[in-house]
Amino acid sequence: MQEVLIPKMTVIGTGLIGGSLSLALKAAGEVGEVTGVGRGLANLETALELGVIDRFTQDAEAAVADADLVFLSTPVLTLPAMAARGLPHMKPGAILTDGGSVKEQIVAEIEPLLPEGIHFVPGHPIAGTERSGSSAAFASLYQDRRCILTPTEKTDAAALELVTRMWQAAGSEVVIMDVVKHDRILAAISHLPHMVAYALVNAVASDHRYGEDILKYSAGGFRDFTRIASSDPAMWRDIALSNREALLEMISSFETMLANLKEDIAAGNDDDLFNFFLRSKERRDALL
Amino acid sequence: MQEVLIPKMTVIGTGLIGGSLSLALKAAGEVGEVTGVGRGLANLETALELGVIDRFTQDAEAAVADADLVFLSTPVLTLPAMAARGLPHMKPGAILTDGGSVKEQIVAEIEPLLPEGIHFVPGHPIAGTERSGSSAAFASLYQDRRCILTPTEKTDAAALELVTRMWQAAGSEVVIMDVVKHDRILAAISHLPHMVAYALVNAVASDHRYGEDILKYSAGGFRDFTRIASSDPAMWRDIALSNREALLEMISSFETMLANLKEDIAAGNDDDLFNFFLRSKERRDALL
Repeated sequence: MQEVLIPKMTVIGTGLIGGSLSLALKAAGEVGEVTGVGRGLANLETALELGVIDRFTQDAEAAVADADLVFLSTPVLTLPAMAARGLPHMKPGAILTDGGSVKEQIVAEIEPLLPEGIHFVPGHPIAGTERSGSSAAFASLYQDRRCILTPTEKTDAAALELVTRMWQAAGSEVVIMDVVKHDRILAAISHLPHMVAYALVNAVASDHRYGEDILKYSAGGFRDFTRIASSDPAMWRDIALSNREALLEMISSFETMLANLKEDIAAGNDDDLFNFFLRSKERRDALL
Repeated sequence: MQEVLIPKMTVIGTGLIGGSLSLALKAAGEVGEVTGVGRGLANLETALELGVIDRFTQDAEAAVADADLVFLSTPVLTLPAMAARGLPHMKPGAILTDGGSVKEQIVAEIEPLLPEGIHFVPGHPIAGTERSGSSAAFASLYQDRRCILTPTEKTDAAALELVTRMWQAAGSEVVIMDVVKHDRILAAISHLPHMVAYALVNAVASDHRYGEDILKYSAGGFRDFTRIASSDPAMWRDIALSNREALLEMISSFETMLANLKEDIAAGNDDDLFNFFLRSKERRDALL
């Protein structure tokens, strides 16, 4: 039998992110047995039925004991507490890694907890959908996506190499990045857009002067534009709070941009408006 | 031969909106000959080749002379000038209608120009894509969409009835609405989201501190969210300027919503954040 990259993996939080990693590694033949851990029994049972995991337990301490790699994909604010529970029970040489959307605060809280010989590799796959739970997991979620790993000076080189190979096996391009840069970039390309989408839906939906739901007149553009406002509220509360500084900075930058646009509309500055829209269109079209 | 709803139609501005109406009415068998008028010869030739129109001319005065119905779908700010050119040459009993995204200003400028016996029915099909030009036109663009007609006390009832049947033949549900209400609702569900998308792309793209284009890290959510920022800059400059008052009001309402969210993030109000995101998610999910 050919050796797999990760003989025994434990996924704590077997939802979209953890479940999809498990499915991707199974599809690639790079994982042996996968143990799922979670709070919700129904979700674990679904994960087992769908073949996302091979077994499950709600005893996190026991679940990590013989794992070669533990993947933490619980809500971002719970990551340090979950790490604190698991780390003392992991075997020497084992690797803890995570999929948290915010890195600086998480790394600062987890690194001091590391026992001698247990390695932590902070990570963040840039992928997801607005759905959640193990039934939303699918093997190709990470295909052709980027996964950012944010090692620190304390990160073990061999552990970083193994986690890099794991994400490559899942189909992703691995990018190594400083934790602070990661959090600022994610604030810009992901956290700010979510805040804007949530605020936009609430602003439009709170216009009650016509005594009818004006959202019913919305067409495809509005629906696409606001799809991310369907994302999990608890997850986004936690992300907003754990990346507070970078996010507030980006919201301010966006507010300034919008205020300038508003001034140009009010003043009827047609050339400035055209150039503002054109610049945006050119940047957006370059993404395709 | 069965009588068609509109024996002779002239479409002034044969792009996505006008071209798709022509294709939809042809598919429904409700239009006879369609004459295209436009500034760009290449676009008219493409429209003819693709069967979007049956003939074309750049002489707008001649093109409207024997039309039973003239559909104006040039950029919104040009609609009154195009109406002024065509109206004196239209035949008695003919109908002028339009597809402009903004109604109050357009109606106020066109109605005083109407010769005796020529009817104007202001309209706005709530449909579109981020693409433009006659090559972007397709017959099912209006299928299962809403078309808002905004008649005034001067609008002829029979003309309104015919334009209603025309949009129904194109597959749309026709909604009759006051012009001011139309402009406010469109400011909320369409014009504001476009302004926000343009401002968001520019805010994110102008973060140069890492000496690389951080947009390259964006994933599907960002791309979907900003798709409408690929829309035509000239069209959106004109919409922003012609629906200025309603749009500025909606931008202010959105700014207040975002400022409240920012305060909750800064203050760490976790319950308020959760409820804000949940309320938005519930409103968004109700659209599906």
